[in-house]
Amino acid sequence: MNIIKVSADSRTSAVAGAIAGVIREHRRADVQAIGAGAVNQSVKAVAIARSYLQEDGIDVVCVPEFTSVDIEGKERTAIRLVVEPR
Amino acid sequence: MNIIKVSADSRTSAVAGAIAGVIREHRRADVQAIGAGAVNQSVKAVAIARSYLQEDGIDVVCVPEFTSVDIEGKERTAIRLVVEPR
Repeated sequence: MNIIKVSADSRTSAVAGAIAGVIREHRRADVQAIGAGAVNQSVKAVAIARSYLQEDGIDVVCVPEFTSVDIEGKERTAIRLVVEPR
Repeated sequence: MNIIKVSADSRTSAVAGAIAGVIREHRRADVQAIGAGAVNQSVKAVAIARSYLQEDGIDVVCVPEFTSVDIEGKERTAIRLVVEPR
């Protein structure tokens, strides 16, 4: 699995490049974020990745879902954005 | 146009209900958010709306894009999530 973990400090253009690269290779990228700042950076990154991928003729959409992750023994709720061609 | 404006204080279940209602009627809902807290609430609301709509056999995805909005004479960058059937 190729999970791209995003934090509030992640650079959107770097995350967008990672998303575009994973999509080109695997046709699907999972972006995971915990907290409002990280979710915001993730959504912006998907918007930017869309423009990168449109140049390749790939039209991606995203599907947001809740997921549980274990952070140092504590269960936290994360947001996962599944990015895939429409 | 049916733009659902979301703030950081919006209740996710209420926004999810609004999204589901607009999708059922118009097959497309535009969700607009300014700032990390509002974007976070919007994404969570879309995830919840997905589960509401799956009960109706409607599988929605979202397409994030940047947009400019005028707030009291100042141009702000907002995130728009276009929600539509896959």
